[in-house]
Amino acid sequence: MSSPAPRTTGQDHPDQDHLWSVDEHLEDILATVRPLEPIELNLLDAQGCVLVEDVTVPVSLPPFDNSSMDGYAVRVADVAGASEEFPAVLEVVGDVAAGQDEPLPVGPGQAARIMTGAPLPPGAETVVPVEWTDGGLGAGPVRGMRARSLAPEDAMGHVHVHRPAGPRAHVRAAGSDVRAGDRALTAGTVLGPPQIALLAAIGRGTVRVHPRPRVVVLSTGSELVQPGEELGGGRIYDSNSFALTAAARDAGAIAYRVGAVADDAETLRSTIEDQLVRADLVVTTGGVSVGAYDVVKEALAHVGDADEPGGGVEFRRLAMQPGKPQGFGSVGPDHTPLLALPGNPVSSYVSFELFARPAIRTLMGLTDVHRPRTRATLTADKALTSPKGRRQFLRGAYADGRVTPVGGAGSHLVAALAHADALIVVPEDTESVAPGTEVEVVLLR
Amino acid sequence: MSSPAPRTTGQDHPDQDHLWSVDEHLEDILATVRPLEPIELNLLDAQGCVLVEDVTVPVSLPPFDNSSMDGYAVRVADVAGASEEFPAVLEVVGDVAAGQDEPLPVGPGQAARIMTGAPLPPGAETVVPVEWTDGGLGAGPVRGMRARSLAPEDAMGHVHVHRPAGPRAHVRAAGSDVRAGDRALTAGTVLGPPQIALLAAIGRGTVRVHPRPRVVVLSTGSELVQPGEELGGGRIYDSNSFALTAAARDAGAIAYRVGAVADDAETLRSTIEDQLVRADLVVTTGGVSVGAYDVVKEALAHVGDADEPGGGVEFRRLAMQPGKPQGFGSVGPDHTPLLALPGNPVSSYVSFELFARPAIRTLMGLTDVHRPRTRATLTADKALTSPKGRRQFLRGAYADGRVTPVGGAGSHLVAALAHADALIVVPEDTESVAPGTEVEVVLLR
Repeated sequence: MSSPAPRTTGQDHPDQDHLWSVDEHLEDILATVRPLEPIELNLLDAQGCVLVEDVTVPVSLPPFDNSSMDGYAVRVADVAGASEEFPAVLEVVGDVAAGQDEPLPVGPGQAARIMTGAPLPPGAETVVPVEWTDGGLGAGPVRGMRARSLAPEDAMGHVHVHRPAGPRAHVRAAGSDVRAGDRALTAGTVLGPPQIALLAAIGRGTVRVHPRPRVVVLSTGSELVQPGEELGGGRIYDSNSFALTAAARDAGAIAYRVGAVADDAETLRSTIEDQLVRADLVVTTGGVSVGAYDVVKEALAHVGDADEPGGGVEFRRLAMQPGKPQGFGSVGPDHTPLLALPGNPVSSYVSFELFARPAIRTLMGLTDVHRPRTRATLTADKALTSPKGRRQFLRGAYADGRVTPVGGAGSHLVAALAHADALIVVPEDTESVAPGTEVEVVLLR
Repeated sequence: MSSPAPRTTGQDHPDQDHLWSVDEHLEDILATVRPLEPIELNLLDAQGCVLVEDVTVPVSLPPFDNSSMDGYAVRVADVAGASEEFPAVLEVVGDVAAGQDEPLPVGPGQAARIMTGAPLPPGAETVVPVEWTDGGLGAGPVRGMRARSLAPEDAMGHVHVHRPAGPRAHVRAAGSDVRAGDRALTAGTVLGPPQIALLAAIGRGTVRVHPRPRVVVLSTGSELVQPGEELGGGRIYDSNSFALTAAARDAGAIAYRVGAVADDAETLRSTIEDQLVRADLVVTTGGVSVGAYDVVKEALAHVGDADEPGGGVEFRRLAMQPGKPQGFGSVGPDHTPLLALPGNPVSSYVSFELFARPAIRTLMGLTDVHRPRTRATLTADKALTSPKGRRQFLRGAYADGRVTPVGGAGSHLVAALAHADALIVVPEDTESVAPGTEVEVVLLR
């Protein structure tokens, strides 16, 4: 700006002259936001959450020696040298089903019919699969057992065994999976289906994790009409509250969409106060720029009383396009973090991806909080232009190491956004990027 | 098998001799399962779903010419040649806020204070950003406007403009985003946050999609105890129902976990019948092998009455390790598809990833139904061994083009599964894989 020096208005922060870099703003957010207090959740409610405890195995898996096949539990000596021509003929003493507590013992010359997962009975030394026997039917090899309910007599009589088995063949030893006292999972593990499988297998019905943050998404603007309703003159449909609620869920949050709030500071303040009871993070869109009706700025830019909504929210100008005006701070007695994003659809979405998503994932206790980035060759008809001193994020389509711009730089171009799957990053000191140049790309999927 | 030929038992299917390949079984499933009937869903309920209609833009975006800046709407001639030293002094006729229907006209020598998104008033030809003016305060350039509520007088009086602006500067033209009649999105689009943004922006409150499938997950086995309860002798904790419910959600389904059902055919049949009302897909684990207590096989392997649970379920042996015994078919009057997976934790999880996940994603109408695959160099101390004629899926940890086996081949090794993020594929005709060999890998994350 040229002299005379720009005058501050009532809403401006003392250090308003500072133009924040994208990285400074992000660092400030991530240095402020902390993982949520851990809670004990039922196993399936903890899916996708971060474990906060080291989990120790209370009882070995499997807890007891058990059969890995449907077959016959026998003594090794009794089936030594057995063949189809010269089978070992053993007395069947009964069934050992999975879940059976005290199976009957197997003596010399005896066999117990055993099911997969059933405990190896006392006296038995090995398991012969049913396919290596006549299944007790006396007529050559069988492929399987007959159902107990249909042929109870198969649990008795005699079985012909056609092949020998060495000691502990087809036996899963107690503790061969994990042993009591082993560390099953360490704090910091993200709980996906296989980790949930292990926790269930060792008997954990609940687990201590950082919960998913509850995010209240609130759009502002007297011009906003809800989709499905009639569009009056001078009005547009509210898309930000839908886009950011979906994006918050996509980031892992439990998201609540609050319909658009008109440009009235008191209404906005009371709406935010009402919502705080269910918010671990508040995200607003619109009303953060330099206009006379920028209600978010007006409602929240109070300095001093930190317990009051807006007491701790600072409004900034970022060296970024789109997304120059941004607000960040905390509101309410619990100092709930609040991100005030700009109102243009593309600005708000890009700001969400860059700032709100990492904040949500930090609240979850994740360490990998950012979208993946890669480098790609720019495919375009002409050079991209970018304002000096601003980091530009252009919408692009990425595939196989190449990225193509989608639509223009305008922050209102929501149609192009819907056909992009990447952001092309043009650094602050770059004003033009020629086709064929390697660029940094943020992958959005 | 050697002669005499293996005998069939009562439960076996006529073509039981056929050993199905992994691909044959998968093809059979994908040729049978069809995308669910489309329904109209609220926008946010449709997140992650596949659109079944081509969506046309009903009204252009933006619907009207509007300002992209907070500033003053003026005539081009009135600000031509303006500078800080020789400003253009214009009469401020009032405010144009966003959402205002019929803004007052701007005549020669006049300016309307205009907010971002507000319609360009009649007579105005361009917009001068507030930063290029004195904001009506008469004391040099300002950084922004004062809030309307605090300084209503700023909407009147005179403004000093310090820079000229060409025609339609800082004006977003009606239809510059999308035009009425344009195709916004095509059928088959997966609805993520940016697509939801576009649908909201064009006024769509609901949208026609394939719904998420409701998947009932049911584990069987008299040995199963629920996590958190006391483990009796010969018993183990139910982990499959938890793992597969989580995996079904991960695949995109609405999943319902049904606690373990004991090995009793009648109980299982009535449980499945009860669950059908909320099932688009039933997934069971356990009870599909050759044992005498294999309740799923017993309950469902009825030939003939296709309307009866089990009427259409076929049990197969697959040339696969783990996961040899598998069942697939349909149950109940609506021919609800059912996948009967084996009961060992690793077998059931691997089977789910290979067969149930693609089925769920097919029900959703997705075309990209499989986990991504890549090739990686095997890092291991010794060669992997694999049974001839079986496609083996070993658990592995993948990073940077290399994969390391985690744990052994045992299908009960759930602890190793929890530390794996990939499956190493060993083809049917390969019995040994040396370290350093390039292998196919299924990525599980």
